[in-house]
Amino acid sequence: MGMMNQDQAIGVGLLGCGVVGGGVAELLLRNRDAYAHRVGKPVVLKAIAVRDPSRDRGLPPELFVSDPAAVIDDPEIALIVEVMGGVSPARELIMRALELGKSVVTANKEVLAKHGREIFEAAQKGGGAVYFEAAVAGGIPLIMPLQRGLAANSLASVQGIINGTTNYILTRMAKEGSTFDDALADAQKLGYAEADPTSDVEGHDAAYKLSLLASLLFGEHVDTEAVPREGISGIMPQDLTYARELGYVVKLLGIAKRAGEGLEARVHPTMIPVDHPLARIDGVTNAVTVHGDAVGEVTFSGPGAGRGPTASAVVGDLLNVASLLDTPDRMMACLQSRTVSPMPLDEVDSAFYLRLQAKDVPGVLGAVGTCFGTHRVSVRSFVQHPAEGGHAELVIVTHRVREASFRAAVREIAEMPGIRAISNVIHVEEQA
Amino acid sequence: MGMMNQDQAIGVGLLGCGVVGGGVAELLLRNRDAYAHRVGKPVVLKAIAVRDPSRDRGLPPELFVSDPAAVIDDPEIALIVEVMGGVSPARELIMRALELGKSVVTANKEVLAKHGREIFEAAQKGGGAVYFEAAVAGGIPLIMPLQRGLAANSLASVQGIINGTTNYILTRMAKEGSTFDDALADAQKLGYAEADPTSDVEGHDAAYKLSLLASLLFGEHVDTEAVPREGISGIMPQDLTYARELGYVVKLLGIAKRAGEGLEARVHPTMIPVDHPLARIDGVTNAVTVHGDAVGEVTFSGPGAGRGPTASAVVGDLLNVASLLDTPDRMMACLQSRTVSPMPLDEVDSAFYLRLQAKDVPGVLGAVGTCFGTHRVSVRSFVQHPAEGGHAELVIVTHRVREASFRAAVREIAEMPGIRAISNVIHVEEQA
Repeated sequence: MGMMNQDQAIGVGLLGCGVVGGGVAELLLRNRDAYAHRVGKPVVLKAIAVRDPSRDRGLPPELFVSDPAAVIDDPEIALIVEVMGGVSPARELIMRALELGKSVVTANKEVLAKHGREIFEAAQKGGGAVYFEAAVAGGIPLIMPLQRGLAANSLASVQGIINGTTNYILTRMAKEGSTFDDALADAQKLGYAEADPTSDVEGHDAAYKLSLLASLLFGEHVDTEAVPREGISGIMPQDLTYARELGYVVKLLGIAKRAGEGLEARVHPTMIPVDHPLARIDGVTNAVTVHGDAVGEVTFSGPGAGRGPTASAVVGDLLNVASLLDTPDRMMACLQSRTVSPMPLDEVDSAFYLRLQAKDVPGVLGAVGTCFGTHRVSVRSFVQHPAEGGHAELVIVTHRVREASFRAAVREIAEMPGIRAISNVIHVEEQA
Repeated sequence: MGMMNQDQAIGVGLLGCGVVGGGVAELLLRNRDAYAHRVGKPVVLKAIAVRDPSRDRGLPPELFVSDPAAVIDDPEIALIVEVMGGVSPARELIMRALELGKSVVTANKEVLAKHGREIFEAAQKGGGAVYFEAAVAGGIPLIMPLQRGLAANSLASVQGIINGTTNYILTRMAKEGSTFDDALADAQKLGYAEADPTSDVEGHDAAYKLSLLASLLFGEHVDTEAVPREGISGIMPQDLTYARELGYVVKLLGIAKRAGEGLEARVHPTMIPVDHPLARIDGVTNAVTVHGDAVGEVTFSGPGAGRGPTASAVVGDLLNVASLLDTPDRMMACLQSRTVSPMPLDEVDSAFYLRLQAKDVPGVLGAVGTCFGTHRVSVRSFVQHPAEGGHAELVIVTHRVREASFRAAVREIAEMPGIRAISNVIHVEEQA
């Protein structure tokens, strides 16, 4: 190992110092010696750009500056860590660093999901690298295992629980029979959900992360705006009860897979069997199951958010970039030659769960069966529950069918005279 | 990307062509173009050393040669893949390659567990690298995530199901109430267990893999001969039934952790609570849970053996070494400055499950309680089951206690007049 020369030190500039940035700075300062030993030269935090450098953050005040561009341009800083979040000015700052040939570590899923193609291209041109382990599934090492560890494989599919807030809410609803609103209120009290929970509960956050995973899988930039997306606010406690009775659980999944010539990438509540590798992932934990042609099925699980886990991923990237600095890192390059849109849901094949309210069960059953037959929807299971006023609640699970056909059948069923209401439709995935 | 020049090609030599070697050769030949694209230059299988080169293996016959040393010495071959298994001649061949400055990819857990220290030292001296993703947990990317992905962390512990054969047997016993012998016979019929199953069922295979994980965790070579090891042949169906009634399952775990000044590394059947991340890992699947100070708890699961998964790991390593050739790969260096012995079981703190047969329950209870008190063993739960002839079977789970104290108490209890037999003792781990 020999002596460590401070001249060889690798300078790091941090853009942003919120929860994650504070965690990153703390690790870099506390573990400086251990990291120098791991990388072979010191990795030195040189500057932190924040809006108000005078605020006390429990870190050495001389590190703080107000101008992120000056941090990027500092010739003593080779690595930029972007943990500001959001699209602007993160995008412009990342591009500026890459154009100067510097490498960037970011936890920013939104900017990569929206502008990944130009960002990875700028890295390629400038000769730097972009690492983003923290942007998907928080602390779980996932991007590098996909890119490097499973490099021998053609990856066929990814399924993931990639939003902890919604998984916490669905877990509470399933275990305690709570309503969505009550479980959300608890999640907010515990700090697992924001005051405005839209990005989490409506699936935007998961869609950003899924775009990144799908882009890795397909080697093309997956347009995040074109990812079909459905949140969990329409899931009712009785859906979870019926799911359990049928041997399923409901999770908000991000799914990406090759389907013939097309590419599927979608985020929606999904019923999966209890023996599916993601079925037992409860609370705020994230998990991703990957299928490769050689390896088969592999699952990664752990904390998907939080200061420590996210900082672990950011600093892990930082040490890896630092140890490979000046090495063209082709295996992690993520170059995306074009932007692709995933298949619209209508073209996807899926099984479905349908819950509906019927007035006149014997009559309805025949009519529903005939309608399904016309649209080539095949029923896998059917359960009838008595409801108030002599009515009945019907729960139907189908075999796999083109989504457009199923939706057309449901529209016709909704108009039948014996039907009071279509209560819910949930996608079903039998396989990991 | 540009044109790929065959002059830049990276030559690969394969030592051994059994199940794994055949899978490696097949991937390299079938995916040649995809791999060249990933690495940036062609990765070309040049030669395969086997005992009988004339045998038809469904691969191009001109690749086969009989002299492994000639493959290693070939100046056109930069990377050596060792998939022969066993200690000799694998050890000598690996050392020869490393002394020539070549890099080695191996799936050979035994040679690394026994001679890792000199092997990693030879790599350091020669300037090559040793990658061994396939040696632990088969197809699951685990070594690189630990070394690189979690590099920001100080790793506190690893717990793993790292032998598929024993996990299959324990799963069958738990789900069907089968005896060990019947479940083993089924595992042999299905090809999950060898004709001589000793290495798997007595924990030798798991102990090799655990030594490797523990060496990574501690940064020292863990003497595999000194790893306390107990197999699963003593587990009875009733132990699994009682475990389930108490909210536990029994798995053969490899455990490595820091304990004060000491290092624990041990392999034994372990009762874990049903909500432990390894509790639902069934059949031949492997899984490893890691604790890091920043990330918290992360779990990796997938296929632990088999042609495709193991070849996936070997070829993944190969592509990574190839892409980083001529880069000193310090993060993966695994240099072990000394050999350490883990703590003997007597010094370990653990909780325990104890099953015993009593003649005279009221008298026994008081005596057992007094004896436990003398040895500072605290009882967490106690269940009495009626047995034939007016006797009783007692099941006791303790709190954590120094193992020597617990064993001393059990030796005394075994001598008590009201006790017919001590039927079983199993370690209990409450936490992942």
